[in-house]
Amino acid sequence: MATERLVIVGGDAAGMAAASQARRLRTPDELAITAFERGHYTSYSACGIPYWVGGEVDGPDALIARTAQEHRARDIDLRLRHEVTALDLDRGRVLTRELDDGGRESWTGFDKLVLATGARPRRPGLPGIDAPGVHGVQTLDDGRALLDTLDASPGRRAVVVGAGYIGVEMAEALIRRGYEVTVLEQSAQPMSTLDPDMGALVHEAMCAMGIETVRGATVTGVLTDEGSAPGGGRARAVTTQDAEYPADVVVLGLGVRPETTLAAAAGLPLGASGGLLTDLAMRVRGHDHIWAGGDCVEVLDLVSGQLRHVALGTHANKHGQVIGANVGGGYATFPGVVGTAVSKVCDLEIARTGLLEREARAAGLRFVSVTVEATNRAGYYPGARPMHVKMLAERRTGRLLGVQIVGREGAGKRVDVAAVALTAGMTVERMTALDLGYAPPFSPVWDPVLVAARKATAAVRDAGA
Amino acid sequence: MATERLVIVGGDAAGMAAASQARRLRTPDELAITAFERGHYTSYSACGIPYWVGGEVDGPDALIARTAQEHRARDIDLRLRHEVTALDLDRGRVLTRELDDGGRESWTGFDKLVLATGARPRRPGLPGIDAPGVHGVQTLDDGRALLDTLDASPGRRAVVVGAGYIGVEMAEALIRRGYEVTVLEQSAQPMSTLDPDMGALVHEAMCAMGIETVRGATVTGVLTDEGSAPGGGRARAVTTQDAEYPADVVVLGLGVRPETTLAAAAGLPLGASGGLLTDLAMRVRGHDHIWAGGDCVEVLDLVSGQLRHVALGTHANKHGQVIGANVGGGYATFPGVVGTAVSKVCDLEIARTGLLEREARAAGLRFVSVTVEATNRAGYYPGARPMHVKMLAERRTGRLLGVQIVGREGAGKRVDVAAVALTAGMTVERMTALDLGYAPPFSPVWDPVLVAARKATAAVRDAGA
Repeated sequence: MATERLVIVGGDAAGMAAASQARRLRTPDELAITAFERGHYTSYSACGIPYWVGGEVDGPDALIARTAQEHRARDIDLRLRHEVTALDLDRGRVLTRELDDGGRESWTGFDKLVLATGARPRRPGLPGIDAPGVHGVQTLDDGRALLDTLDASPGRRAVVVGAGYIGVEMAEALIRRGYEVTVLEQSAQPMSTLDPDMGALVHEAMCAMGIETVRGATVTGVLTDEGSAPGGGRARAVTTQDAEYPADVVVLGLGVRPETTLAAAAGLPLGASGGLLTDLAMRVRGHDHIWAGGDCVEVLDLVSGQLRHVALGTHANKHGQVIGANVGGGYATFPGVVGTAVSKVCDLEIARTGLLEREARAAGLRFVSVTVEATNRAGYYPGARPMHVKMLAERRTGRLLGVQIVGREGAGKRVDVAAVALTAGMTVERMTALDLGYAPPFSPVWDPVLVAARKATAAVRDAGA
Repeated sequence: MATERLVIVGGDAAGMAAASQARRLRTPDELAITAFERGHYTSYSACGIPYWVGGEVDGPDALIARTAQEHRARDIDLRLRHEVTALDLDRGRVLTRELDDGGRESWTGFDKLVLATGARPRRPGLPGIDAPGVHGVQTLDDGRALLDTLDASPGRRAVVVGAGYIGVEMAEALIRRGYEVTVLEQSAQPMSTLDPDMGALVHEAMCAMGIETVRGATVTGVLTDEGSAPGGGRARAVTTQDAEYPADVVVLGLGVRPETTLAAAAGLPLGASGGLLTDLAMRVRGHDHIWAGGDCVEVLDLVSGQLRHVALGTHANKHGQVIGANVGGGYATFPGVVGTAVSKVCDLEIARTGLLEREARAAGLRFVSVTVEATNRAGYYPGARPMHVKMLAERRTGRLLGVQIVGREGAGKRVDVAAVALTAGMTVERMTALDLGYAPPFSPVWDPVLVAARKATAAVRDAGA
């Protein structure tokens, strides 16, 4: 049998997990694997960048799950600093440019193709946004550049644009480095991945931590040393519709969108968010020999029944496993997500799963919502701290639709109980009988999630049809 | 309408939760509630006693969820130090004796009866076992008596008999008080509620904590100051088949059995463990007007399909809620348990849910089992610690059968994910795609439970039919 040729575009979590899994199932004689990565690093934890910047983790090496050398030792032909610039699906080949070597271009043929091109940060087209001192934090190269700026910067004022996961994590990192931090958030509350009432709890906690958090702030530009002209000097302030916030460094945390320029140019099917569309085996729809996974695809939201874009390393790794199994002749599927996310800012833990109120409405669902305050441990046990749990349930059926949690130690990962219950399609009434682990150091006798389920059960009953 | 009379036997978690819930639904004119409790306290957390003894919690007041006064203020006629000594089901009345008041006896009539008589500690009939200085830790009165002994004891050597949940928690409590602690366990490993391979991890950790843990130790008696004659002086040592362990205080942690002496005398149906048998509404089988809940009943194990006795405050509270709702004219059921338990000894967290290997075999199940070592957080994140997860899955179907976890911070409550998956009847393969919360401070990119599910999925496949 001739050796099959697998080409992978993108050498981070999804791409290299696919490569590793395929290699487990197929020898180099059976399957030749070539992976192209335009950056300097491979298989790294982008999610760890805020902790590297904050000095809690020695980066970048610690953030690399598997080095290029380790991949190559397993007969994966990994080429760093190689950018794929075109897909030629008709002839089964990709065009690459060597970024460090005079830009030499060449074609590589494939029998099977994996697209794992990731996501690119949102960067609004505002004056000064590209000035030195304005940083994204999407790649290890971004992290290194930000650290270089911080090391070189004489000042101690940082502005973070966006109060989502990356924004709040970067706020914590900069606080740890001794910066005065201002976070500018366009929405009514930070963490717009929560309902506003839960976001308000985050706002309150961030203020108490000494993080200036400005809500409803529309950023209008970045002022530089020589004024606001694009291409001018270093960033020195961020302006909003109302005010000017001095900044020695600016960090952008505005989320990401799928990086599918290549796929679009090749005519591959994209969804409303711009992510690639795949089947359950992570094959690109209509293309038997092309797979896609990680931050460049859309996934099925099992709660709303709709497609969405979720950029998370844990999904990317699962996608890679599924792709590698299928490419290697095995069988696996990725059924979808329920929208779980967890984060923290200093000691505040923030988590969600399922749908927010606005998402439930957009999905056409009628629901009740309740919020409870309970403690992470038995109230009498040392370290017991309040936590808030918000729960949404469908009217009539009582099906769980979503949970949001804001609290301290032990609060965040409690969202997993709801994630499993959502996956199983449980009603909130059934949840009230869940046999969750109980002992005073771990939980009150009624776990906070169960307290919320009881209240939601009553709300469903009271709401009637 | 005449006022109905509800009598409750036992004023701890199940009984008083039933009383409270019934009172929410029915006015005193509709339902008169009388509760008899033979102890000094009501609605307390027995699970908190080890932390009170260890000095982490100010007891006993902090352990009381609701005082007798609070219950009485809600029109519940709560009578402490009243022991119910007989049930006369034919005439619908109970006989009580006032323990503090000359033993005065009287009958109280009921229309509806709730039995919440709890459990009694196992206390082997060995020489010296009732000597002063030998303590159980089942009730707040027990906790007070033990603390009195500890305060009065000049020595610093403690022997704990039994290395189950109570045993290891009491070992930690006594270590905290500066005692040299020896734990004597009859089984091959401590924590016989785990499989022996997982129990061995607990043994290793306990030894590293300076707790002498003797395995395979059959206790033969307690030596007292005046020798081993029963009724002699204070305990001074515990003897096993092999050795003698000096002790200034002896704590018994041998588990409990249902306290159903009254029920048995009245001819109510008991199961193999001696616990009362109920229907899903927690009504005693065959008796429309009698309910039972808490540590005195058997519950359905949803994984094995068999009845078992599980003494846990969290179940007792749920039973009480269900009973109170049904007694009060509402509707609720308790579907059963999946066998979840969590505990800790110092910083070691220990958890289980579902079936052990021996339990799965006893239930007639064929299964595979796998164990993985992973970390509680991303490996590079500060505080990442190893944890072990063992997972059992049914052959052919791949249905999850059980999970055991031994690890450090953040390990124990991860068992909840498996508890919900068990409740939903998930396969381990389906679990591999669970959308669990991921961020470096909370979890590796593959949560340890998912790592175990992946390995179990492969084991099911490899095991074939």
